[in-house]
Amino acid sequence: MSNIRITPVSQELKAALQDKIDQKTKPPGSLGKLEGIALQAGLIQNTLTPVIQQPSIIVFAGDHGIAADGQVNPFPQAVTAQMVYNFLQGGAAINVFCRQYQLQLRVVDAGVNHVFAAHPLLKDRKMGMGTQNFLHMPAMSLDQCKLAMQAGAEEVTLLHQQGCNTIGFGEMGIGNTSAAALLMSHFTGIPVAECTGTGTGSNAQQLAQKRAILQQVMAKHARPASPEQALATFGGFEIAMICGAIQQAAALQMMVVIDGFIVTAALLAAVNMQPAVKDYCVFAHCSEENGHKAMLKHLEVAPLLQMDMRLGEGTGAALAIPLIQSAVAFLRDMASFNSAQVSNRTI
Amino acid sequence: MSNIRITPVSQELKAALQDKIDQKTKPPGSLGKLEGIALQAGLIQNTLTPVIQQPSIIVFAGDHGIAADGQVNPFPQAVTAQMVYNFLQGGAAINVFCRQYQLQLRVVDAGVNHVFAAHPLLKDRKMGMGTQNFLHMPAMSLDQCKLAMQAGAEEVTLLHQQGCNTIGFGEMGIGNTSAAALLMSHFTGIPVAECTGTGTGSNAQQLAQKRAILQQVMAKHARPASPEQALATFGGFEIAMICGAIQQAAALQMMVVIDGFIVTAALLAAVNMQPAVKDYCVFAHCSEENGHKAMLKHLEVAPLLQMDMRLGEGTGAALAIPLIQSAVAFLRDMASFNSAQVSNRTI
Repeated sequence: MSNIRITPVSQELKAALQDKIDQKTKPPGSLGKLEGIALQAGLIQNTLTPVIQQPSIIVFAGDHGIAADGQVNPFPQAVTAQMVYNFLQGGAAINVFCRQYQLQLRVVDAGVNHVFAAHPLLKDRKMGMGTQNFLHMPAMSLDQCKLAMQAGAEEVTLLHQQGCNTIGFGEMGIGNTSAAALLMSHFTGIPVAECTGTGTGSNAQQLAQKRAILQQVMAKHARPASPEQALATFGGFEIAMICGAIQQAAALQMMVVIDGFIVTAALLAAVNMQPAVKDYCVFAHCSEENGHKAMLKHLEVAPLLQMDMRLGEGTGAALAIPLIQSAVAFLRDMASFNSAQVSNRTI
Repeated sequence: MSNIRITPVSQELKAALQDKIDQKTKPPGSLGKLEGIALQAGLIQNTLTPVIQQPSIIVFAGDHGIAADGQVNPFPQAVTAQMVYNFLQGGAAINVFCRQYQLQLRVVDAGVNHVFAAHPLLKDRKMGMGTQNFLHMPAMSLDQCKLAMQAGAEEVTLLHQQGCNTIGFGEMGIGNTSAAALLMSHFTGIPVAECTGTGTGSNAQQLAQKRAILQQVMAKHARPASPEQALATFGGFEIAMICGAIQQAAALQMMVVIDGFIVTAALLAAVNMQPAVKDYCVFAHCSEENGHKAMLKHLEVAPLLQMDMRLGEGTGAALAIPLIQSAVAFLRDMASFNSAQVSNRTI
């Protein structure tokens, strides 16, 4: 991934875009967050007439060593593979929303603890049968981490070559809220207990145990020396692929739709590798997962949606993409005060 | 409107609907607000397989006596009629969003201070050339108010007869945040100054003047004896039509999508006439207009979206309807743990 270069978005058209937004037939600012998205889309695409083309979601799936014995996860590890089959059969929430909003969906096996038969909808990028248990050793080696990031980047490049300019990421991986909490704690400095939430639905006793285990994990590892090393130590194969995918999407000047807790953890790693990546990100949804709000605050960003969801799979990104399309549509199609002969304010 | 009968939604299928939601392949509750909407849609339609049919928006436009001299409104009154032309030409924000989401759009002249030539997209329900100035006398007579409610109800019936079962309402009327603030104060007991906001963009001095004027209006009128009398005194023709339209939609067991500050003020009146109307309402968006949050709190409801918008026109409803469609879609199309052979939680 070292050869990826991400440039901050050009500010060249900022004033012209803001003026175009303010000349639309509405009180200034009255379209709220949509106005910010319209401006950002124009800056990313460096045009007064941005368009959203072939919006897509890639779901990366991977298993986690920490989850093998069920100490941090109310659902068994086998659910990761079962849900991949559910994605392939079209029965998961992300399938339903992608069909509704006409989003392309790609599913990538980043390292699920199951051998899948070849399937036209499943991309095999398997890095292993799940990560190592970070309670005992780093989740993966630094080389594995870099290969995973590269694989994620390549999946984005493929979609970009087909004409996609707007992309969201989802994940499936029993145990991956634990990995995300560790990454959050590492990158934000917030104690890991505060970063830890109920995931798929821990009760109070399970949550206390999850917190205790994650505190042991943090104590076990010397502070990793680089963002890549932190991602290798605390991450997951799907998280590393998302981290690489986000960076590649930004390098290709695509709009990047950031979903919930796990994807934002991958972004934290990406921002620490390439700060300019944030210019390309739209924040879809604030998850109910404990810690996501603090993560977004740390990044100094506001999400479009607060739907109280905590499912992952990229579902928050899927629901936000129509709003991004609305932002671009008003910028393109609304009349101006002048064109519609509507009086502007008198004062 | 006295012959409208609204029954509370049947709770007969509540347990079965909740069980169907909980058997979907996701942690329980993890689709957040969408789960509540799915349940509500099932209760309203009294079926385990609700559908959203021909979702529609009706924008009611009317002028306000209080706005004629520009004391409460930064934009001149002529903008109401100009914006109606903008709706007819397809250039307003609500046009853009209705095209994007394939929503039917109807525009009704409830009482704009302008004579429009006949136009196929404009429904003439004109009650007058704007209301009276409530600083001096009630905005309309009780008879006019009842006729306006009846007109709104009839517009809903027409759409229902064409197969629409989900409807949102929008408004256009320079000065109507003043009417809405007065209605809010009347129905909630909150002092009118706290109900008053910047509308289309008052500065601090204009806001102070608007508050002083609305306090005079409240002092001028003896406390109206009925919700209908309050609506006649403080309302507007478009607000009265929306109040009647909401009630008729609930009576026809349609799903009613409540937009921003003005539409919610119309709902406050409707709820005071027929409390069961609330069972049929989904709350689309919390407006940036000061007072809307307190209004929603008074109604004990939570909106789907907080997009920091304050435009009206039904734009919040238009953006929320896809989310309602997502809720109904997951209930209909997602696999269950059983059908997808996914393990449920171990504990």
